This record gives sequence, C-alpha cells and structure tokens, in this order.
Amino acid sequence: MIDLPEGFIYGGDYNPEQWLDEPGIIEKDIELMKKAGVNCVTLGVFSWAALERYEGHYSFDWLDKIIHTLYDNGIYTVLATPSGAKPVWLAKKYPQTLRVEKNGVRENYRGRHNHCMQSKIYRQKVGKIVTRLAERFGSDPAVILWHISNEFGGECYCDTCATAFREWLKKRYGTIERLNHEWWTAFWSHSFTSFDQIDPPYENGEYSIMGLLLDWRRFTTWSTLDYMKSEIDIIRKYSPDKPVTTNFMGCYDGLDYAELNEPLDVISFDSYPTWGNDSEPLWHTAAAASFDYAQMRGYRKQQPFLLMENTPCQTNWKAVNKLKRPGLQIMAGLQAVACGSDSVQYFQWRKSRGSMEQYHGAVVDHSGRDDTRVFKEVARLGEILESLKEIKGTSSFAKTAVIYDTQVRWAIDGMVGFRKYDMRYLENCQRWYRALLRYGIEADVVSTKDDLSDYSLVIAPMLYMTDDALNDKIRAFVKNGGVFAATHLTGYVNENTLNYLGGFPGELTDVFGIRNDETDALYPNDKNDLDISGRKYPIGGICELLTLAGAEELGTYDSDFYAGTPAFTVNSFGKGRAYYIAAELDDDGAQKVISSMFEKEKIKLSPLPEGIERHVRSGEDVDYVFYFNYSSGRRLVDDQTVEPMSVRIVRRKADGSVSLLF
Amino acid sequence: MIDLPEGFIYGGDYNPEQWLDEPGIIEKDIELMKKAGVNCVTLGVFSWAALERYEGHYSFDWLDKIIHTLYDNGIYTVLATPSGAKPVWLAKKYPQTLRVEKNGVRENYRGRHNHCMQSKIYRQKVGKIVTRLAERFGSDPAVILWHISNEFGGECYCDTCATAFREWLKKRYGTIERLNHEWWTAFWSHSFTSFDQIDPPYENGEYSIMGLLLDWRRFTTWSTLDYMKSEIDIIRKYSPDKPVTTNFMGCYDGLDYAELNEPLDVISFDSYPTWGNDSEPLWHTAAAASFDYAQMRGYRKQQPFLLMENTPCQTNWKAVNKLKRPGLQIMAGLQAVACGSDSVQYFQWRKSRGSMEQYHGAVVDHSGRDDTRVFKEVARLGEILESLKEIKGTSSFAKTAVIYDTQVRWAIDGMVGFRKYDMRYLENCQRWYRALLRYGIEADVVSTKDDLSDYSLVIAPMLYMTDDALNDKIRAFVKNGGVFAATHLTGYVNENTLNYLGGFPGELTDVFGIRNDETDALYPNDKNDLDISGRKYPIGGICELLTLAGAEELGTYDSDFYAGTPAFTVNSFGKGRAYYIAAELDDDGAQKVISSMFEKEKIKLSPLPEGIERHVRSGEDVDYVFYFNYSSGRRLVDDQTVEPMSVRIVRRKADGSVSLLF
Amino acid sequence: MIDLPEGFIYGGDYNPEQWLDEPGIIEKDIELMKKAGVNCVTLGVFSWAALERYEGHYSFDWLDKIIHTLYDNGIYTVLATPSGAKPVWLAKKYPQTLRVEKNGVRENYRGRHNHCMQSKIYRQKVGKIVTRLAERFGSDPAVILWHISNEFGGECYCDTCATAFREWLKKRYGTIERLNHEWWTAFWSHSFTSFDQIDPPYENGEYSIMGLLLDWRRFTTWSTLDYMKSEIDIIRKYSPDKPVTTNFMGCYDGLDYAELNEPLDVISFDSYPTWGNDSEPLWHTAAAASFDYAQMRGYRKQQPFLLMENTPCQTNWKAVNKLKRPGLQIMAGLQAVACGSDSVQYFQWRKSRGSMEQYHGAVVDHSGRDDTRVFKEVARLGEILESLKEIKGTSSFAKTAVIYDTQVRWAIDGMVGFRKYDMRYLENCQRWYRALLRYGIEADVVSTKDDLSDYSLVIAPMLYMTDDALNDKIRAFVKNGGVFAATHLTGYVNENTLNYLGGFPGELTDVFGIRNDETDALYPNDKNDLDISGRKYPIGGICELLTLAGAEELGTYDSDFYAGTPAFTVNSFGKGRAYYIAAELDDDGAQKVISSMFEKEKIKLSPLPEGIERHVRSGEDVDYVFYFNYSSGRRLVDDQTVEPMSVRIVRRKADGSVSLLF
Repeated sequence: MIDLPEGFIYGGDYNPEQWLDEPGIIEKDIELMKKAGVNCVTLGVFSWAALERYEGHYSFDWLDKIIHTLYDNGIYTVLATPSGAKPVWLAKKYPQTLRVEKNGVRENYRGRHNHCMQSKIYRQKVGKIVTRLAERFGSDPAVILWHISNEFGGECYCDTCATAFREWLKKRYGTIERLNHEWWTAFWSHSFTSFDQIDPPYENGEYSIMGLLLDWRRFTTWSTLDYMKSEIDIIRKYSPDKPVTTNFMGCYDGLDYAELNEPLDVISFDSYPTWGNDSEPLWHTAAAASFDYAQMRGYRKQQPFLLMENTPCQTNWKAVNKLKRPGLQIMAGLQAVACGSDSVQYFQWRKSRGSMEQYHGAVVDHSGRDDTRVFKEVARLGEILESLKEIKGTSSFAKTAVIYDTQVRWAIDGMVGFRKYDMRYLENCQRWYRALLRYGIEADVVSTKDDLSDYSLVIAPMLYMTDDALNDKIRAFVKNGGVFAATHLTGYVNENTLNYLGGFPGELTDVFGIRNDETDALYPNDKNDLDISGRKYPIGGICELLTLAGAEELGTYDSDFYAGTPAFTVNSFGKGRAYYIAAELDDDGAQKVISSMFEKEKIKLSPLPEGIERHVRSGEDVDYVFYFNYSSGRRLVDDQTVEPMSVRIVRRKADGSVSLLF
Repeated sequence: MIDLPEGFIYGGDYNPEQWLDEPGIIEKDIELMKKAGVNCVTLGVFSWAALERYEGHYSFDWLDKIIHTLYDNGIYTVLATPSGAKPVWLAKKYPQTLRVEKNGVRENYRGRHNHCMQSKIYRQKVGKIVTRLAERFGSDPAVILWHISNEFGGECYCDTCATAFREWLKKRYGTIERLNHEWWTAFWSHSFTSFDQIDPPYENGEYSIMGLLLDWRRFTTWSTLDYMKSEIDIIRKYSPDKPVTTNFMGCYDGLDYAELNEPLDVISFDSYPTWGNDSEPLWHTAAAASFDYAQMRGYRKQQPFLLMENTPCQTNWKAVNKLKRPGLQIMAGLQAVACGSDSVQYFQWRKSRGSMEQYHGAVVDHSGRDDTRVFKEVARLGEILESLKEIKGTSSFAKTAVIYDTQVRWAIDGMVGFRKYDMRYLENCQRWYRALLRYGIEADVVSTKDDLSDYSLVIAPMLYMTDDALNDKIRAFVKNGGVFAATHLTGYVNENTLNYLGGFPGELTDVFGIRNDETDALYPNDKNDLDISGRKYPIGGICELLTLAGAEELGTYDSDFYAGTPAFTVNSFGKGRAYYIAAELDDDGAQKVISSMFEKEKIKLSPLPEGIERHVRSGEDVDYVFYFNYSSGRRLVDDQTVEPMSVRIVRRKADGSVSLLF
Repeated sequence: MIDLPEGFIYGGDYNPEQWLDEPGIIEKDIELMKKAGVNCVTLGVFSWAALERYEGHYSFDWLDKIIHTLYDNGIYTVLATPSGAKPVWLAKKYPQTLRVEKNGVRENYRGRHNHCMQSKIYRQKVGKIVTRLAERFGSDPAVILWHISNEFGGECYCDTCATAFREWLKKRYGTIERLNHEWWTAFWSHSFTSFDQIDPPYENGEYSIMGLLLDWRRFTTWSTLDYMKSEIDIIRKYSPDKPVTTNFMGCYDGLDYAELNEPLDVISFDSYPTWGNDSEPLWHTAAAASFDYAQMRGYRKQQPFLLMENTPCQTNWKAVNKLKRPGLQIMAGLQAVACGSDSVQYFQWRKSRGSMEQYHGAVVDHSGRDDTRVFKEVARLGEILESLKEIKGTSSFAKTAVIYDTQVRWAIDGMVGFRKYDMRYLENCQRWYRALLRYGIEADVVSTKDDLSDYSLVIAPMLYMTDDALNDKIRAFVKNGGVFAATHLTGYVNENTLNYLGGFPGELTDVFGIRNDETDALYPNDKNDLDISGRKYPIGGICELLTLAGAEELGTYDSDFYAGTPAFTVNSFGKGRAYYIAAELDDDGAQKVISSMFEKEKIKLSPLPEGIERHVRSGEDVDYVFYFNYSSGRRLVDDQTVEPMSVRIVRRKADGSVSLLF
C-alpha cells in the first residue's frame, strides 16, 4: 500500500523526454496538472535513450529537475526503470538482446518490451542504468513507488532461452523418463532420450505434445519473473524503503500473473475495456473491467491495488477506437476505486506528437487546450477523488470466488479436441462472474493456487486441469461446508495434461457424485436446452453426458439423444455441496443456475436492476457502497436512485446510519 | 484379398507401446477385444522409438510377445512398418531426414509422416528396421498383412528433392526445348536454357508456370511411390507370401492414388466423414463417404478393399468434433461393407492418455469401461459382422462410372482464371455421384487412366485436362455404344496444361458436336437457370457459351445475354451418345439431367426415397442388397421397410428367393 | 502527344515470341489485325529471353522482321524495353538482381517486374540490351513510341536498397537530430544516433514510426524513378526524337505516379475495372474507371494520354472474371476516349496458350477464329474510332478538381488510430468524384503538388497530411475566390506526419473557420446522420466534433452526445469560401452536400439521369460531348436519347450547331 499522497493517487504516465526541446511546455504541464487535481505522475517508462543517449554516457539531470519541479508543486513521482524500451544503439551493438520469434528468426530493432529475458548483456546494461537510477532517487522523498519496466509480455525462442528451457525442464522432471511419461511421448514414437533433444515449440516444430506447449508457457513466466527479480534486487539494495510494482495487463494470457506478482509490494495494472463496442451492452463491458479488478484484488487480499493506466478518452490500437461518452471516464475511474484501487492514473498526460500512440487519448490533446471535454472531465474527477479521500486504504471483502487460472487457460487453449481451439475459457469465466455481479454478489477472481478457505461459494468454470493439491483443496473446501460449482470440462487432466484414467472429473468424481461418460461438441446451428423444472435455457458448444453416482439431478437436457439425462446436479459431500453444470450456458442460464443454487442453499437473492453494478469497500465500522448505472434509464436500488450513466456513493456506518458521499 | 480371418476383419489400430509400464492393461485389452468380437489388430504403426530406442539397439521382444498373446487369443495382426513417425534421435542426428517446407526452411522435429522421401539415410535406417521386422515376422502365421508406413502425404522442398525433380523432368521431357514448349515459357521471358535452372515451386518462387506446378505434384507422387517401393521390396524379400497395403485417405489431393496404388496387394483406407455437421443433410455426408469407397473399389475392380481406420465415436482434429449419434457407428461400418470393404477397423483401440490424439475417439475410453455407449455399439457391430460372414469376399459390379481424377484436380486448382482458385472440382464430382446414388445407381469412381469399356454410362464432370490416350478412349467408348456425359470446363488443355488450339472441348469437339465459344464466370449474387422443357434449374459459378456443331439442344440458358442458347446437348456419335452440360448445376439440376439422359436412353428410372442409400455386393448366384436410412422417418424401398437411422440387408438369390439377413 | 497514326491508336500488346515456332501464325495475325482496324501494336514487353537467349548473345532479326512486316501492312509499333521480365539465366547467374522481400529473404526466380531497382548489374544488363534496341530502332519510322519496362511496382529490402535508403534519408533530413524530431523518436526511446542505425521496415522490424513507413514508400518511388531515368537516358541518346512512356496502373498505391510521371513524354496506363461485379451498380464501376482517367489527365493538363492496356473480354486474375457484356467493350473503349485518351489498346492480341495469363481475354482466342463475339466487337470499335478521327488530339477542360494524393493515402494507411487501418481514403475520394459526375461536372483528379489556380472548385476528401506549400496554396486559392471543400481527417499532420499543435485542421483552421475538438470512430452498427435543414444523411466511420470559429453552420449531427453540433460548415475567407464536412458520408450525402454548395454559390445544378455519364473533349471552336448509358433503360439527357448500354457522341460547334457523330 502506498501512503503518499494523502488521498487517492491521481495522475498518470508523463513522458516529457518528448518535449525537452519545446520551451515552456513543462511549466505549462505543471500548471495544467494542478488544474486537473493531479498529485502524482509516472516518469521514466520510456526514457532510456534520453538517460543514456550513448553507451555509458548517462544524463539524469533533466529527469532530476523535472522530478523536483513537480515535487515542489506537490506532485509525486512513480519512477520507472527504463527497460521497457531499449535504445537503438543497444540493439544494434548487442543483437543478442533482441528476441528470436517463433519462426526461429531474430527480430530487427523495433517496438518495445521485446528484449530477451535471458540475455546476459541485457541484464548487465539494464543493471547499470537501474543501479544509477536507484542510487540517485532511491531515498528521494519525491519518489513514492518504483515501476519495474513496463507491461511485461512476449516470448523469446533464441538459443539462450532454449538452453534455459532445457535446464528448467530438467529441474521440473528430474529424469527424461519422467518427462516422457508426463508428456505421453510414447505415442507417435516421440520419446526423448535426452533433455538436449527438446526444442521450444517453434512455428515449424513440435505442436502435438501438450506438456511441451504448456511447459514452454510456464518457462516463459519463470524467465520473466527471474528477469524482473534481477531488477528488483537492485532496487531493494539502493532503495530498500520504497515499494515496487509492475503494471499488469488484465487477462493477458502470455504470463501467469499468479506467479509473477510474488515479489511485488503493490499490484498495479492497466485497464483498457472496449467501451461502447457494438457487440455487447455497456454493462457487460463494465463487468469485464471489474472481472480484471477482481483478479488484481485477488493477488493481495484486503490490500488495495493501483490502476496504473487507463485512457481518459480513446485508445488508438483497437479496430475501432470510440470516444468515451460523457461521464464514462469518471464512471470508469470510480469503478476502479469501487473495486479496490487506490489510484486513477492515465496513459498518458500529453498526447504524443507523432509516430507511437499519437492518437492514443491523453489528458492534454494536440491542441494543448484545457477547455476540452476530456480535460474538464479529468479535472472533475480530480475534485471527486479529493472528496472521497476517506475511502483510500479501505478493503474489499468477498465471500465468493470465481476461479480463473491462466495455466488452465493455456491447457485448454492448447487442447486439440471437441471444439478445436475454440473452447472459450475466458468467456465462460467472465460469464459466471457477470452472473454473480447481476445479483450484486461481490466475487474475487482467484487462481487455482489461491487459498479458498475464506470463501463460502466458489465457482470454477471449465476446471480442465487439476493437480493433487487442488483436488485436495476442493475436497477439503466442500467437506468443510463450502459450496463449490463446476461446469463442463472439469477434471480431465493432471498438471501435465495427462488424462485421469477411470473417468472424469478424475479425482473429484466422488465430490460431485457424477461421472462424465462422453463429451459432445455442438455445431453453431445445433440447438439444445437445459431444462430446469420445465423452463429451458439454451446450451451452446459443449454437452457432457453424465451418469449419476450419488448426485441429485437438478436439470436435464431437453433434446437430442441424451434428452432427459442429467445436465445440472448437486451432491452433498461432507458438510458442503458440490454442483455440476455439464454444458455451456448463456447468461440467462448461468443466472438461473445461480439462483437455483442459492435457493437450494436457502439464501435469499434478488437481481439488481439491469445495467446496475454495485461494489463495496469497507473500512473500520464503515462500508462505502458504490452504485453504477450503465443503462439509459433511472434505476432504484437499495433505496438509492441512480441516474443513467452516473455513479452514487453511500457511506454506511456500523451504527446503521447512511449518508450520501457522492 | 485377405483370407484370414474367416469372416470380416474386425478390429483396429492398437498402440500398446503407450502402456508397456502399466501392469495388466494388455491382458485387460485382450479380454475386452474378445468381448467386442475383435479378430485382428494393427500393430507397430508408431512403434519405432519403442523398437529402436537408441540407434542400432533393437528390442522386438515386447512386440513379439504381444503379437503372440493376441494370436493365442484368436486375434490376428496387421503389422505396420514404423516409418510413419520417426524417433527424435534420428531427426536430431540426421537432420537431412527432416523435410524442407515450401518456404525453403527445414522443419524442426515434430509431428509425424514428415520425412524426406528422397533422403538416403532415412531409407537406410528404415531399411534396417524393416528388414529385421520382416525377417522376424515375415512368415509368422499371426501376421496376415503388412501395413507400409502410414497415411503417406506431404511434400519436401530440400535440395535432394530439387535435384531429383530435375532428373525426373529430364526423363519426362527429354530436352529443355520440349519442356519450354509444354510449359509455355516463351511468354513473360521465362524460357529455361538448362534443367538446372528449374526449382521446385517455393513459396517465394515461381507460381505462374502451370506445368511446373502440375509436374511438381506428379513428382511428389513419384517420389512417394519410389520410397514406398523401397519398403515393399524388403517385405517381398523376407515375407513373400504376405500381402502388403498402405492406408489411403479418401480424396486427399496431395498424392495421385491412381498411381500410388500400383504395387499394393490390397487397397485400404481411412474414412473420417464429418458426420452430423450442420451444413448438409446426413445422407450427403454418407454419400461423400461412399464416393470415397467407390474410388477405393475402383483401384482393384471386383476385389474387396479394407476400411483400415474409422473412429468409433468422434474425431479430435476437426473444428467441431461431434459424437456419432446412436446407431451411426454401426451404419457407417456396414456402409463400408456394403460398398466393398472386407473389414471394419477403428483408430484406435484404447484412447491415448495425453498429447497426440488424446481426444480422438477410441473403443476403450479413458475410463477403461466396457459399459460405455461406444463400447457396446462396437461389440454389437462385432456380432452383426459375424452374422454376415458369407458376404466376405463378394464383389461390387457397377455399370456406371464417375471420373474423378486427382491430376485433373491439380490442373484445375492451379488454374488462374474464371473463378480464380474456386472452381470446385471435387464438389462437382461428388454432386454427380450423389445424383446417381439418389436414383440407386451404383457407380465406380475412376481415374482418367482407368479402362472404361466395362461401363455403359460414364459421367466426367469438369474434365479440364485430357491427353491423347484419354481422348481416344472416350472417342472409342462412345463410338462403341457408350453413353458419356461431360460438363463445363471439359477439354481445355493437354496433359501439360497447354490449351487446345481450335477451340474447346479440343479433340472431343466432334464427339460432343458442340463448340465452346466463351466461358463466363458468375458472381455469388448472379443468377441464371438451365431451362429444360420449361422447367428451371439454378446455375452457379460457370456458364459456357456453346455453338451447336451437330449436337441436339436439350436445354437452354434462361437469362442474361445468352438466354436461349444451348446449355445441355446430346450428340450421336458412332453407336453411342455424348451429352454436354455447359454450366455448373446444383443437386436438383444434376438429377434432372440424369433423368433426362435415361429417358433419352429409354431406361426407366425412379429415385429412391430421400435419405435412402442402396448398395449391392454380389457373390456367385447371390446378391446382397444393403439399405441405409439416413432420414428421421420410416422408408419403404424395393418392398423393404427401413426404420430411421438403421440398415436392412437382404439376400437375393439367383432363383429369385429373397431373405432378410439383417 | 503521338502524331502517328493519323487517327486514334488502335491495337494492343502483341507477344509473337510465343509463336515463333508456329508457321503462318504471324501472317494470320496481320490479316486479322487489318480486319479489326488495328493500326499499332506494342512489341517487346516480354521479349528479353527471345532477344538474348544466352548472356551477351543477341538476336534482333526476328523482331526487326515482325516490326517491318507490320509496318509494310500499315501497322506501327510501340516498342518496349524488355526489363519488365528478366530471363532465368540472369537471375540464376546474378541473384543480386532478385528482390529481397519484406521478410528479409531474397526471392527465387519467378513472375515478372520484380528486379532490384538499385542493382548495378541489373542496370548494366538492361543498359546493354536497351542500347542495342535503341541503336537499331531509334530512328525507325515503324516505331512511334518507346514503352519503358512494364507496370513498375513493388519494393526491395536488400542491403543495397537499405544503404540507398539511408543515403536518401541523409539528403532529406540533413542531420539525425532533424530526423529524430520529424519521426518523433524521442517517445518509446527510439532516438537514432546515426543514419546507419535505420533499417527498412522489415516484416520483423520497426512498424511504429510513421515517418519511417512513409519515407520508405517515398524512397521506393525515388528508387523506381531513378531506375526508370537510367533507361530513358539511353533512349534519349539513341532515339532523341521519339517520345517515351511507361504504363501506369490506375490507383496502384505502391508508387507515387505524381512524381514518377515527371520524365515521361506521354502518359499511358492500364485500365481493368471490375465490370459486372455484384457489389455495385455498373455506373459506379464506370465512375471508378473515369476516376482513373481523370487522374491520368491530371498529369499533363490539356494533353491526351493513352489507354495502353485493357481487356477485350475478361481478366484472369480477379476472384471472379466475368465476360464483358455485349457492347461494354465498345463503351469502355469510348469512355477512355471521352476522358481524354488518344488510344484504345488491348492486352493482348492473341491469347497465350499456357501458363501465364492463359485465360486473360485477348482479341484472338485459343480457337483462332474471327467470328467470335469478342473479335467482332473489336472490329466494330475499329470502325467507330476511324469515324471519330477528328476528335484525336483534342483536350478536356475541367474547372473542378478532386484531390487524391498517393502520399496522403500512405500516411492514412500507416496511421494507427480511430478506425485502425480502415479509414477508406480512396473510397472517399472516389465517392466525391462520383457525386460530381452524377451532376455532370467534369473533374480532374489531382495531387497535392498540382497547381489549383485554374479550378474554381476543389474538393479534398480526408486531406490528412499537408505541408506549408499546400497550406499556402489552399489559403491563396480560397483568398482569390476559389471554393474549397474538405472533409473529416483534414489537416492533422505535416509532411512527416507530425501532428499540428494547437488543434486541427492545423494551419487551415482560419480558412475553414472551425476547430476539430475530438474525432469519434463509429462501429459498423453505430448510426448517426447529418441533418441538413431537417433531411437526414447517414454517417459512417468517423465523426469529428467541431467548434465554430467563424464558420457558418450548414448541417448538424442528428444524434449521440454531439447531436445538434455542427457537421457541415462554410466559411468566407478572402473572396472565396471554404466548406467543411466533418463526417464520412455515403453517396446521397455527398450529392446533397454538393448541391447545397452550388446553391450557396448560386450556380444551378441538376443531376444527370441515373446511370448516365457525360464527358466533353474540346477542340478549337468545337466540343465533342459523349453520353454513356450504363442503365438498363432508355435515357433522355441534353435533348439526346441514349439507348441502354450504349454511347452517343455529339459535335457541338461554337456557332451553336449540333450534329450527331455516333
């Protein structure tokens, strides 16, 4: 948690190295920042070439001056290490710092966040500049947080990485025999006789060993973590008292954030929902954003996170980059706060004049004006945040969790079968989260590694891959009185994607009291329904054919040759209950299943009005309840009237008193 | 033809090398095989790494033991040479055995059936292990058939192959002048002055010489055949009394099976129709399967073939992998038999536990149970086949043929014009075959190289490429009283894709009595109809503008600037007649044309009820008539009532007696 | 301008090197050419391999003989240099003449017009053969025009080109600091410290610097021009009296023809409209063709151009290659003449027998007949052109221009923002041109470099990129009384794609009297309308949010949060007026805007009947008015009745007399 500034952090990425030649622009920026209520900016993200224009020639004075001019004006700095974008000279002199792509070809200098994580020379060069930065600013009161590199991501297929991968495999499996067994290489004559024979999954290489595909992605996470730690070690040495973070990217699936977050003091991330797209209602887009927030929250229970980046206006890199409609920017910022963020930060402060991201929204546009719609909304949010100060540092307490696990996603994405490469794992997880949200149930989004014991209800959509620890954890959770719900594709494989023998859901068969005999895949034009007490809920994609083995049937298939067989079941196990939904449902179906479960559990539940999202942050003896109305009509909820496209925030004291905060 | 076992071969691919570590599983398998009526399995397809784990270290004992344990339990073995999947050590030590892809880059170790067919070292290594296998099992009574490698396919662009290609061209054309003429290189300044200048059609290489594209595919067939023969030679030496086969893949267009089948004793193939897809009625899917069977039958007239692979349940590699609906698996197996197969074999017996094909259907599922729907249907088909024993070895006699020729397909696929790369050759061939099937007319599917003299009717859709031999054969066929029907795109080019000068259909102009003046291509939204006596049949894709030159007009275009001009004609030539259909029709149109032709030929014809497919196998003085009902309603045909989704088999003796077999 | 022959040039590409072995075919061709009214053919385009079969061994006699046999028969020759397609021996011996593709890999020998423009050896080899050609035919009366190479296009990424690119950049920017500023590399740490660090935009290289992408395309034009000049220099030396041309390809965007045309004496180009496609009415296709003509006309004001290629029938390289409907070929030829062409030439005379373009339409088909529909129409057009002789050499005079600029297109295509890579620049330019055509207003299509002073109205759709010279030119144009109309996306960036600070439309803000505050992007399903006096016109894609700064509002947005704000404005500036249309309109909207503008300007305007296109060529005291009716009904226009799918040509003398020419 970040203590300074007093209230919420408000500001964003500031890249003044673009404007060093333009006289007066930095003074102008500070004036505008104050106008906007900004109290903190992120500096240095892309400054390497400005800090070290020629190899070994460092110039930190300009940065120092900006940091302190800002500080003198009441604006703190989040200081980034510059490794997110390397200078040209580095790439040209040390081509081994460039990544090798999946096709085996080393890339040319380009873009950003694309260095080889295992490159010794890269670490050396980064080490030098980070050391200098940390030495110089490590105890500077103007700096309140270290921002390690930027938006980690991507893979490298170079020989150094390939060698490191083999070493990593050796550690993981010990012997080649063990690896052969877990990767099931005996089929198709693929047995390895030495670790040296194993290559990364090049584009023109092996694609049929599931364990290889999965382990490569695990290795990439390990490699990134290993690299990130090398930067953090330096920071800790020279700046032991300042917290470190790195900015995640929501549901980015290239890395397992559940592992990567480990050495961080503060979780932060960048949120870029596709607001206003034409394929879903606005509250679905909002729900996708809060799904991400719920995930960030999950990494550090009870501790606020930071919204490190969001756009004050529009993005530039999506197919269609729509303006945020009036008020939406304020709603989006407050949604982050409602979900547990202690900051609202923008990318970026002043719009780039050319090339990279020149049409990505910014607080200050090319026109430089402070009377734009965007600037005025930013300034308005600055005021609002100031008025909500007391909420800072409070926590979110959810009793419900949805399991969304990046490694499960990898396993499913690599899977060849049923609906090939089209199993929609993320979409299913989001759908169940959204269904909970519709009932106003606050849920954390957790990984399979997380502790479940604090929750009373856990929903695990498509829990395809489980290991012994997870199986045991779920078993204990239910046995001890928890309610656990799983859907189609649960319990097929162990942690290396070896199928459970003896039937699915594998080790969890007795917990659920069912057996999955066959897994049917539907074509887009195929129709079936889940029948719950005579009402029908459409099914798409996947239908599992169940045999009851102790469970009670709560719903059945409506048609096809398995009409009338169980599709929704519940099993009492220990003090708890385990629900199973054997097919892919739509939103209505998921909501119906949830209400059926709560009815069964004798908990009263009524849905929020459509378009309403509700979140609660809790301090000592006080709850802050946030209501967001994403619909175009006025809504009444919990005795509060919420206008369309607006937010209402209520303070509820332990003594029962209720007051309107905003 | 395979004598053993007594009745139909029933079984499939068995890959026990996956399970050598699991105690008791092989005993369990044998027990289950007996339960299922299995009398034969295919072993060794992917066993190389298990037979030769380290270079030169062979271990055959485990295989020997399994073969003989099976044999002791009444189960024969089809023994595969292991070259379909190479071990990692081989690829790593001898990278020249790996293929070079179209982009000129050598692939990494991966997948299967992807070795360079011209690699000397590959042939050497394969030669050694095949020799040992053949020595050891060459006269073993447990082994009834050799299965050479597996599903041949693909191309290699390595230097060795490029050199071999040039040699092959030199043999084909003799002089570079002849090649230049046939490839028509004088245009665009492309004349070669030496064979050394010719490269394979690399991705970044020559794509505009039609003869090069075509010859490259011919060469690939030659190269594969040449390789396959090298394996067969060894088998013949050490196992002279056992037949050999290799498993084809239906209409796979990478190889010309019409040439590749030459050295085989028995034709076998793998059938994977997309049962239950949502874009066609079920009987169309069935008709596509029987089109493949008719083609397999065509390679060895009157001699049964083997269905070497089909899935007992679902595939894993299609976009959507739907379960076979109840009964369909039995229908599909009996359809193969009805069309001339003496076996029903599955891929595979026991489902792989991980990685490759872990979700491809198998007789024994991951659960290991014998009370699954799939296992029970497999066992039921085992019983049925046992009851149909007498049919084994009987033949199919068709008086009608559809010409579908892989090389014609290549020529059309390479063609740049009209509807670029979208001429739908296979679809048109299947459509005419299906129209015949609809009238209950049994047709063989033959290549342009086949003898036509036994047929009375031949339909040749889109016979774009003809050579002198084919022109003469068709001319003689019609002259001698045959009825020959051709469609749009007939007779445009010679065997090297040089256009016939003097107009199309080239040398066949007088046979058809028409001249094709222009070839129009329609956009998807363009409409026209074939008008036959006032009834309209939709036309798509292509319309040829004909001038009558002796032929009689049977139908005309309904609209556009060529409305009223001939689109369907007949010409008397010698004792026969040649029909020409100048445009691409749909199913209704094709059926109407067929009924018009039969009317003209004074043969009575009535369509089968919709959804019914009928096939006949004939023994001495006895016909076995199979009726399949792919519809959802009961159907009456030939006085037989056939229930929906079921099969009825009738024995019709020469004396007129009819009895129900199934 | 070409003096010979007396009337219009009529003929096309003739490639007899294909037929040198076929006795009598050339005599036959001459006989047919005379029958068709052909007076000129283009020879030598693909003759290199025939002229220099082995390196240094030249044989020109066959060509000489053909040229003079033709000449003796009254047929002139356009003689091409053969560099458009290189012989195999050249590529094999000098691989550096082959291009390197965007992926950094040198291509194999293939196709045509694909040599490295900077290859010294290529220039040397071309130089030798062109010298010999020019020496031999440079003053030959049979040859009336030099045709340099063929359809220039494409890029090369080889090291030689990379080095030349760096040199070119050095010349353009002088210092690396200047380049860094204009490319805005300070962001993302991309500053270069030396020109040597800059690479072409390889597939796996830099894609985020807009200036780099743009300059690479400029360099490619420079490199092509530089190469073309090297050929022209030789021609000028040995054949100083004969004009030179090269054939452009309409709106091909790989090169900036506005620069490339500079050294040419005559503009010529190849026109291949997608006649008869199913996604637009026929007159739209015709309008796209005349858009191209208007562009060609723009390069040499008042001087006729040549239609160097068009197909007499169908193309072979489009997805669907439909026959030209009866009469269309004649209409298309006369449309070229109406728009300012002094020729109608075909590709090609006799259809290739194989491989390349074997199904591309030709005057003489594979059948060799002269009674085909195509041949007869070609002959008919020959007669018509003979009867229109007096029109040759007359000019087109347009008072209106549409600015379509290839470099603006590049800048927009490279842009990342709003609707990423989908801004439809060409489509918008064509739409405004079409709207003018609909009112019978003849417009030139000009580049941003062209003089505007002769026009009274200029429409500049999406004038995204402007430089000082252009800004000044527009300012002066309006100040002096011109009417200028611009649309959304105007004035965002300078010539290196640096955004104008201070708001858009940058330096033109006061000319238009508006400020663009935000740019919204719409999803396909988003709807909005432009409201002009209560009538609604649909908007798609882009909406800019304007603030009036002097301009008058003529139309507003109909919905969304900017409903009622200005979307169509006019500003008086000096003696002229500047209109601004802030959103993307459809055809109806563009027509309405044009009629509103003309009303405002007090000019009477009425649309032509739908499907009618009208063009005028003017000689001394005489106008030739062409009416084309692309509709299926009879049309009355200017007292002339025009039958469906036909042309009417009227001679209007200065004395007011009107006579029908055709």
